[in-house]
Amino acid sequence: MWSLYCAPLIRSISNIVYSTISSEREARLGNKRFHVVGIGNAIVDVLAKTDDAFLESNDMTKGGMTLIDEIMAGTLYGKMRAPMEQSGGSAANTIAAMASLGSDCAFIGKVCDDLLGERFTDAIRDIGVTFETPPARDTTSTARCLIFVTPDAQRTMLTYLGTCVELGPRDIDPEIIADSQITYLEGYLWDPPEAKEAFIRAADIAHQSGNKVSLSLSDAFCVDRHRDDFLQLLEGHVDILFANEQEITSLYQVDEFDEALQYVRGHCEIAALTRSEKGSVVVSGDEIHVIDAEPDVTVVDTTGAGDAYAAGFLYGLTHHLGLRDAAHVGSVAAAEVISHMGARPAEPLGSLIEHKLDFKN
Amino acid sequence: MWSLYCAPLIRSISNIVYSTISSEREARLGNKRFHVVGIGNAIVDVLAKTDDAFLESNDMTKGGMTLIDEIMAGTLYGKMRAPMEQSGGSAANTIAAMASLGSDCAFIGKVCDDLLGERFTDAIRDIGVTFETPPARDTTSTARCLIFVTPDAQRTMLTYLGTCVELGPRDIDPEIIADSQITYLEGYLWDPPEAKEAFIRAADIAHQSGNKVSLSLSDAFCVDRHRDDFLQLLEGHVDILFANEQEITSLYQVDEFDEALQYVRGHCEIAALTRSEKGSVVVSGDEIHVIDAEPDVTVVDTTGAGDAYAAGFLYGLTHHLGLRDAAHVGSVAAAEVISHMGARPAEPLGSLIEHKLDFKN
Repeated sequence: MWSLYCAPLIRSISNIVYSTISSEREARLGNKRFHVVGIGNAIVDVLAKTDDAFLESNDMTKGGMTLIDEIMAGTLYGKMRAPMEQSGGSAANTIAAMASLGSDCAFIGKVCDDLLGERFTDAIRDIGVTFETPPARDTTSTARCLIFVTPDAQRTMLTYLGTCVELGPRDIDPEIIADSQITYLEGYLWDPPEAKEAFIRAADIAHQSGNKVSLSLSDAFCVDRHRDDFLQLLEGHVDILFANEQEITSLYQVDEFDEALQYVRGHCEIAALTRSEKGSVVVSGDEIHVIDAEPDVTVVDTTGAGDAYAAGFLYGLTHHLGLRDAAHVGSVAAAEVISHMGARPAEPLGSLIEHKLDFKN
Repeated sequence: MWSLYCAPLIRSISNIVYSTISSEREARLGNKRFHVVGIGNAIVDVLAKTDDAFLESNDMTKGGMTLIDEIMAGTLYGKMRAPMEQSGGSAANTIAAMASLGSDCAFIGKVCDDLLGERFTDAIRDIGVTFETPPARDTTSTARCLIFVTPDAQRTMLTYLGTCVELGPRDIDPEIIADSQITYLEGYLWDPPEAKEAFIRAADIAHQSGNKVSLSLSDAFCVDRHRDDFLQLLEGHVDILFANEQEITSLYQVDEFDEALQYVRGHCEIAALTRSEKGSVVVSGDEIHVIDAEPDVTVVDTTGAGDAYAAGFLYGLTHHLGLRDAAHVGSVAAAEVISHMGARPAEPLGSLIEHKLDFKN
């Protein structure tokens, strides 16, 4: 039932991705096998354009991510016009974009041994990402996210978590975590009950191995569901935080971006706060940068904007760029992803940043 | 020759201004007579709407301030459609907006004893500002600034400096400077040759009296003309700097706002950097604030936006508000001024901030 016409697109991207600067990459990688390992929900996205009236008539929370069951997923899927399918998942998108930038990455997440699970696995492996989490057998099905894109380029997501709820501490491969400069975790992991234990285990292994831990807050509603846990995480478990304006103000329950900025300073080593067309603000101790969004972008679909920004930023951090340049790579990656439907890059980001940013020359 | 139909408007504003919170003002003023004394070019503005084709056909630098002679001023004035006249001058606008907020202020600037000089003097005194600089006699005429406002709300200014060139150190009243918490100077003062000596004298007196010195960079082209002087001023003479994005990037000759932000940190006690619709960034030592512009403003004429922001910010500083709240007052004042033609407030800013901001409750 799930159309698969995106697979050729993904393959053609992966061919281009393989051409990125491999010798340079090895020189910079240092003594770890991976720049970043991402841990997140392994999800296949189904995207379709719609209008605001459709969202209203189906009681959807515009701009948010709502959890739904499999029956509802089936019902809503039936209402999508010309749905387009592509592997997704927040942390998985970030890892895919990092691979497109030429980074060495791994991903940990739970699919089922069904057709969608296979597609997810093929897509992420095809772009050079190590993905070895054993699939679940004979249980629920692989997770799907139905994404409705309105004419204002805003995306509204409804997620059936499926097999993702089975991700647990036993799926955390300690060797991969120990061998990754940064372990990157999505806040959505707080929704499936066992995944938070996986999260904590991964963070502990990472720190014991002298590596960094990074968290993306994922979604303002997700922050609302798990505020206390997230606040506690920031005290000790998280070194690099990603959040957009809605998420960081929700976390601290303040009205204004600047108030949240004051709170977050000092609670993690680096915070990269994205503000859509207002760009991003990066703070690390006394260092602070105010970075513009890329100019002249025609925004088609904002799905994955934050994921792509995180990818660019982490690429910068693991390639010895300063915080400002890292944020620039993030902005360029985000601008690429929002210029078309779908959360993963449609053109090789490695070439794009070489073209757009002069610090790689 | 110069139409004077704005005088009734100015009077009606001044009547409203007198109704601002006077008892509170006195309680906060401390042991100085004035919150702020402004020193700047005493100019009467003549504003008219025009289109981009007019700017091009007259070789005008859009968005800038160009110095012209009296003959050119006469010629261009003849080409203005329905010109509107109002007292202006960058620092004078700031002082007028501060008076509208309920501050006690003085102004130092040079007019001629002609009709325009009288109008300028009446307008600034009518709103409660102490203005005692003796007018020049029998020389050139009072300065005029021809302001062309295009449909995009951008203003293009052509200034005949007239009597302003006669402002010199002898015009600096040491008692007023010593009795003002902050001495505020506009960068345009660097254009008339003698005024910079007045500037240095005022700054020295202010510092000897334990007061603060504030500078607005005024204009990117002005910065370009006087970059070395301005850079030198920031090392020791200036405590509080105001600049917009174009000015601060011009000062440090960098392409990007964030680069300029890094340079300016540590070079003055407080820097308040305005970014039009992107809001402002305020930095003071390790403290930094990223403040949004007021939302939902219909921009009619950007003339005086920076002047009004400075007024609000200085009001905040002299009324024991924190930097974030001071920047908010600046944003509200700027939003009022850009919502209509002309650089001075059309409604009493004191009431406006009481209505808009809750820290006054």
